[in-house]
Amino acid sequence: MVEVRVTVRLKKGVSDPEGENTLKALHLLGFENVRKVQTSRVFNITIEDGKNIKKEVEDMCQRLLTNPVIHTYEIELL
Amino acid sequence: MVEVRVTVRLKKGVSDPEGENTLKALHLLGFENVRKVQTSRVFNITIEDGKNIKKEVEDMCQRLLTNPVIHTYEIELL
Repeated sequence: MVEVRVTVRLKKGVSDPEGENTLKALHLLGFENVRKVQTSRVFNITIEDGKNIKKEVEDMCQRLLTNPVIHTYEIELL
Repeated sequence: MVEVRVTVRLKKGVSDPEGENTLKALHLLGFENVRKVQTSRVFNITIEDGKNIKKEVEDMCQRLLTNPVIHTYEIELL
């Protein structure tokens, strides 16, 4: 088995409402020294050993895990 | 400025519907060698320099970013 971590981030310029609202909420709670919050999603994928795992995971990213209009992604074999 | 990465994961035994549905969808797309998908959320927090940054971020986690009943979290200073 191989474990792969896929991190999906929003592209620059794409608004991140969850991050913005988290920032507002942190300010309201008194954490006024926080300047920015950016969120991202991580998929930890366990996959059977095989050839071209990275290529296959890239295919998963393009077909299901990300939206190429708004996301960038990073694949790490763990 | 300091950048801190907070990774929020589900505790063991807590169901992860997003991961389960991603797994099903990957199987339907023909990625049958995928065994498990686990999701987690990452907050990248930019914060002004100060004392006890880690303690402060821990406080944020407990008060806003995580639900201690279902989540574990990890704080990394970048």
